[in-house]
Amino acid sequence: MGYKEFTIEGRNAVLEAFRAGKTIDKLFVLDHCQDGPVLSIKREAAKKGCLIKYVSKERLDQMSHTGRHQGVIAFAAAYEYAGVEDILDVAKKRGEPPFLFLLDNIEDPHNLGAIIRTANLAGAHGVIIPKNRAAGLTATVARTSAGALNYTPVAKVTNMAKTIEELKKEGLWFVCADMNGTVMYQLDLKGPIGLVIGSEGEGVGRLVKEKCDMTASIPMKGDIDSLNASVAAGVLAYEIVRQRMG
Amino acid sequence: MGYKEFTIEGRNAVLEAFRAGKTIDKLFVLDHCQDGPVLSIKREAAKKGCLIKYVSKERLDQMSHTGRHQGVIAFAAAYEYAGVEDILDVAKKRGEPPFLFLLDNIEDPHNLGAIIRTANLAGAHGVIIPKNRAAGLTATVARTSAGALNYTPVAKVTNMAKTIEELKKEGLWFVCADMNGTVMYQLDLKGPIGLVIGSEGEGVGRLVKEKCDMTASIPMKGDIDSLNASVAAGVLAYEIVRQRMG
Repeated sequence: MGYKEFTIEGRNAVLEAFRAGKTIDKLFVLDHCQDGPVLSIKREAAKKGCLIKYVSKERLDQMSHTGRHQGVIAFAAAYEYAGVEDILDVAKKRGEPPFLFLLDNIEDPHNLGAIIRTANLAGAHGVIIPKNRAAGLTATVARTSAGALNYTPVAKVTNMAKTIEELKKEGLWFVCADMNGTVMYQLDLKGPIGLVIGSEGEGVGRLVKEKCDMTASIPMKGDIDSLNASVAAGVLAYEIVRQRMG
Repeated sequence: MGYKEFTIEGRNAVLEAFRAGKTIDKLFVLDHCQDGPVLSIKREAAKKGCLIKYVSKERLDQMSHTGRHQGVIAFAAAYEYAGVEDILDVAKKRGEPPFLFLLDNIEDPHNLGAIIRTANLAGAHGVIIPKNRAAGLTATVARTSAGALNYTPVAKVTNMAKTIEELKKEGLWFVCADMNGTVMYQLDLKGPIGLVIGSEGEGVGRLVKEKCDMTASIPMKGDIDSLNASVAAGVLAYEIVRQRMG
């Protein structure tokens, strides 16, 4: 679940990985190795701005899982999505009522990463994102999540409204962030809950909003329209944290 | 106070503004005007990625304040800093106990912009930033503040610790964000208050922290270290909002 690193070993495999556009975090090359295939790999690495480290044969042998590294080992990133049931399992294992984030079309990867980071620290059990139109788990998301992607499961669903329907059968209540909603301090946000956050421009979509049990607003006293999406998610999430602690 | 736009008119003035690296938001050029100086200006505008609009002489005449536009008018951005006393005046005029943000070395302009945005919406009267080592009010800050820079005064001070000392004489209390502080829900955050936020890496500096009356922590239930600085600022600010409303 989450973000994992794995190694790609051998000249062809590494070269193919670069050419296929895989996210390679680091490349280890045998010191003083200058032959054709290795030079091609180094050129690809330079094009992608990938960090190259020159190491001894002993070091490569230690890192190798296959024993057939041929002088090159790449560290690649893979993002494995969880299932919604995995997220509920996390809650069950911790003996806590489920606390989920559902992100309806957050398109900015920095916001997505920051929200996954917040979900982790607020003690949420997972994050659900839609398959279409939204940011996926890219390297930028991994970086701005500050490591949270390693711990907090993220599930991708085809139909957010349908997922909410199904989770209601598991006893969850859904609260949707909306500027015209009830001031969050006046809502009862304890118990098994899904916090639904929309994109900055459009908010939560109509079909998803209709499935929610409550709409919560953050009191706005200023001159401008709305908070940054990841700040709004943080403020709402911590109102849930406060009520759960009380 | 805040972020203002002003016009620069005439060929030499506009060309000089581009060459001096001023932030030009938009350039208006007389339709079909192709002579040498205008072409130079258009080249500079293209280099800076500045938007060029071609308009009629009537339109330029309307926009002109000097009546001597010579076929070119540029819209430039200027950031005027407020004084600390201006911020206290805003509170006085609104008849509210002062609520200030003090940012100790926030270096990321996206975070600075998002925090100014939050300060505006949380009803804070202003933001104080230090002169050195921190992000200033650049175009990125203006953009990520989503317009808040037009409303929320930002003051720049040489010595943050000294500014806190002086504001204490005005009756303000200072609460410093710190992971090892008291859980924020247990603190009394009503009344005239300054919220001190540090950089993500280092937190609030020792000298500034020593001047604060309280340290507040956000409960962290996750696996990673800390929230994004602008999310943390939002969560703390809204705990102050909640207590002030109650």
